[in-house]
Amino acid sequence: MRVGSTPFLALKASAPLKRPKSPTTPTQRAQRCAKQGWASPRAPTHRGIPGGTRDHSPAHVVLRDRLLAAVVACFKRHGAAAIDTPVLELREMLIGRYGEGAKLIYELQDQGGELLALRYDLTVPFARYLAMNKITNMKRYHVAKVYRRDNPATTRGRYREFYQCDFDIAGQFDPMIPDAECLKIVHEILSDLQLGDFLIRVSHRQILNGVFAVCGIPESKFITTCSTVDKLDKMPWEEVRSEMVGEKGLSPEAADRIGEYVQLHGGLDLIERLLQDPKLSQNKLAKEGLGDMKLLFEYLTLFGITEKVSFDLSLARGLDYYTGVIYEAVLLQQENDHVDEPVSVGSVAGGGRYDGLVGMFDPKGRKVPCVGVSIGIERIFSILEQRVAVSGEKVRTTETQVLVATPHKHLITARLKLISELWDAGIKAEMMYKKDPKLLKQLQYCEDTGIPLAAIVGEQELTDGVVKLRDVATREEVDIPREKLVDEIRRRLEP
Amino acid sequence: MRVGSTPFLALKASAPLKRPKSPTTPTQRAQRCAKQGWASPRAPTHRGIPGGTRDHSPAHVVLRDRLLAAVVACFKRHGAAAIDTPVLELREMLIGRYGEGAKLIYELQDQGGELLALRYDLTVPFARYLAMNKITNMKRYHVAKVYRRDNPATTRGRYREFYQCDFDIAGQFDPMIPDAECLKIVHEILSDLQLGDFLIRVSHRQILNGVFAVCGIPESKFITTCSTVDKLDKMPWEEVRSEMVGEKGLSPEAADRIGEYVQLHGGLDLIERLLQDPKLSQNKLAKEGLGDMKLLFEYLTLFGITEKVSFDLSLARGLDYYTGVIYEAVLLQQENDHVDEPVSVGSVAGGGRYDGLVGMFDPKGRKVPCVGVSIGIERIFSILEQRVAVSGEKVRTTETQVLVATPHKHLITARLKLISELWDAGIKAEMMYKKDPKLLKQLQYCEDTGIPLAAIVGEQELTDGVVKLRDVATREEVDIPREKLVDEIRRRLEP
Repeated sequence: MRVGSTPFLALKASAPLKRPKSPTTPTQRAQRCAKQGWASPRAPTHRGIPGGTRDHSPAHVVLRDRLLAAVVACFKRHGAAAIDTPVLELREMLIGRYGEGAKLIYELQDQGGELLALRYDLTVPFARYLAMNKITNMKRYHVAKVYRRDNPATTRGRYREFYQCDFDIAGQFDPMIPDAECLKIVHEILSDLQLGDFLIRVSHRQILNGVFAVCGIPESKFITTCSTVDKLDKMPWEEVRSEMVGEKGLSPEAADRIGEYVQLHGGLDLIERLLQDPKLSQNKLAKEGLGDMKLLFEYLTLFGITEKVSFDLSLARGLDYYTGVIYEAVLLQQENDHVDEPVSVGSVAGGGRYDGLVGMFDPKGRKVPCVGVSIGIERIFSILEQRVAVSGEKVRTTETQVLVATPHKHLITARLKLISELWDAGIKAEMMYKKDPKLLKQLQYCEDTGIPLAAIVGEQELTDGVVKLRDVATREEVDIPREKLVDEIRRRLEP
Repeated sequence: MRVGSTPFLALKASAPLKRPKSPTTPTQRAQRCAKQGWASPRAPTHRGIPGGTRDHSPAHVVLRDRLLAAVVACFKRHGAAAIDTPVLELREMLIGRYGEGAKLIYELQDQGGELLALRYDLTVPFARYLAMNKITNMKRYHVAKVYRRDNPATTRGRYREFYQCDFDIAGQFDPMIPDAECLKIVHEILSDLQLGDFLIRVSHRQILNGVFAVCGIPESKFITTCSTVDKLDKMPWEEVRSEMVGEKGLSPEAADRIGEYVQLHGGLDLIERLLQDPKLSQNKLAKEGLGDMKLLFEYLTLFGITEKVSFDLSLARGLDYYTGVIYEAVLLQQENDHVDEPVSVGSVAGGGRYDGLVGMFDPKGRKVPCVGVSIGIERIFSILEQRVAVSGEKVRTTETQVLVATPHKHLITARLKLISELWDAGIKAEMMYKKDPKLLKQLQYCEDTGIPLAAIVGEQELTDGVVKLRDVATREEVDIPREKLVDEIRRRLEP
């Protein structure tokens, strides 16, 4: 286990996971959505908050912060600095960056002034940030909320407001060194979080484009064909093929030729084989892409992580801006699955190389090559949440060390004076907001909220210049001279 | 100094501050706005991001996180739990909560579905959260961004997207105990941050309403008169009076009678005097309010903070939802001010009691009394930022402990293997993304970014099974057996 792994993540064997089933027709899919209680994007929720969003209770926030801390610890281990950008972006900055995702962008009403939208991801704002500030070299992470008018599937951790945790390396460097580090990061995070078995699928946009070219697809149809290929992890090949021929207008022969390639997956052996492929090896794009992949796998071998990495030609990733290596991590279902309602999760991390995006924001088109990865924290969170629920762990939501209490009436003054001394000494202290609370209620409050110590002052203690310090767990009580109280509390709370 | 105060806040004597001057006519004010380079809300910025928002560079984020950590430490010291709510709220939830602030709410375009808006503060979402979840008792903090279509004044720390840091206590408790704690928190935070002298102005909505009543103002004009009184900190009385008579339709005599009260400020003595006031003492609202104030000041005396607290009848606070005690903290200008461009700051914290707000969100109107405070982190941040700039402190933006380096060519494999070992051991490590970087460049990178150690592997070290560990500051180099490297790095970096 890595140094710094958080204890809550180590509870029991990981919760079993089910891959989402793949219903075969759109109608079946729609029926399944309805059955799973997905909110329609048009139906108001009547819950008081927008559909597809949620409030986070204190217990949620504690767990989420532990999870984010584990992810950020990994980003810092790799030397990244943090930036932050506004949730609001100029609408023109987001247009044309997201392919079919564009229709999911939240736009603000024109209330006079600039036309605004909510950010859709953290990658486009990062590229804009680099271009605006003329930065040509940066390793940064960014943990923040993004917004998509998507069909929410909250049981699977898909929301309209959700966190992304992005790590990106910008700069002109030698090939595949930063790309390999991004995959190492995915491997570290998914291992640290002990989410069970996982697989990182890797491919390369140039290889895919090379495949399209040798299969006789016109270049104008590369992007749209790409987004159809990307559905291969959710639909069978027959369906993907019929979308290619029906919706995208490819010839059945071309689709079949594509099918021969995109159903392949493997490791270095597959790369070597494709480098010998009579058609692909003649294509400049494919050859370059395969060269990159070969070098990447050599580096991944040095990192010792190839066991969890699969070169998978069906991986395409929908976003327009990728130009090189692309990847996506999925959790694998456990074999012995006996839990009634397993959490189904799909992709939990994804990313790739986007060498052209920064240039689009630069007035002179200056390019800054980039590669990065985004961790799908919401999906991981729903697994961890379920795991904590199953374990019965009671999550403490406050850090209070001492309750200042009184054993009888007319002592509000004594409590206020004592608690003020503790706060001023940096001790985390609470008191009940009643003038004359019962001692039993005060001690009960300690037990309910996990406060380890009670500092009790009554008339006798005031006269004697002491405070009765009670260990809530053992119920032991000791009189401590008032001037030594702070030191004694600190001593008792030392780890 | 409180335990946990952060070192960066202790730099030199605090930066001098100037209160914003008060030009006397709207035209003068507009000219001054233009001179100070405030963006017009309609003019596009051509900077690539929305006017009134900003990107945060790594150095910004590091400073901001230190500041937020100091504020959150105080909230936790007082036993608060964290919640989080969506940035998006249903528009209907925000309507009618903010008085004149309503026109500053950002609305989302109707793209089909619910009508949405961006949150304007964290108080209304908290009240909605309590009502929706039927919570009658909670102490929570919330640190998050809020959105206002305000006229930005970025030099003074006023933005359209900005952080709020809120602490609130909800529940039916004995009078003034939670209210006093909120003021204690403001006092602790402003003292911890060492921002120079400050004053917490306190008043009570019922006293103000009592004053209006005994001055003959009809109840229907209480709220609107309140928002005019609130301007007394920015305009002279004459101007406030003429707004009352001209815009708000009060009689000149009534305005004059109000003027006699709202220009008063003091401490317990003033409260006692007003309790004897022949007119006010006959008014039920005022009498109750003054009783609350008396108790509040008794508690503040126990906390030892009355020196920084002023009962100020001109304080009104614009928001509609306050029902009891209200307060606002301002930083006071230093006397000996010799810096060329001092940061002008106004209010740096504010809050009060709002006993009716939660009931507005409950279908049965069940009330949950609340009191809270919001820390104006952006204004404080602009002071700290200027202070760090003046001090010349170089803020480190990464935490990297070791650079993995090589002294000559053809060693990328050795570097990748070694850095992978360090990452897996939890060491924060970087390497340069070149296949064959010069040693001098690698060591220069350590100095530029503050990396304390370099782990150097060349052919000789590989043969000997060692790594050359270099202390970047002293330039001392020692060969360490490979298997002892991790322990040696940990030992060297111990605090």
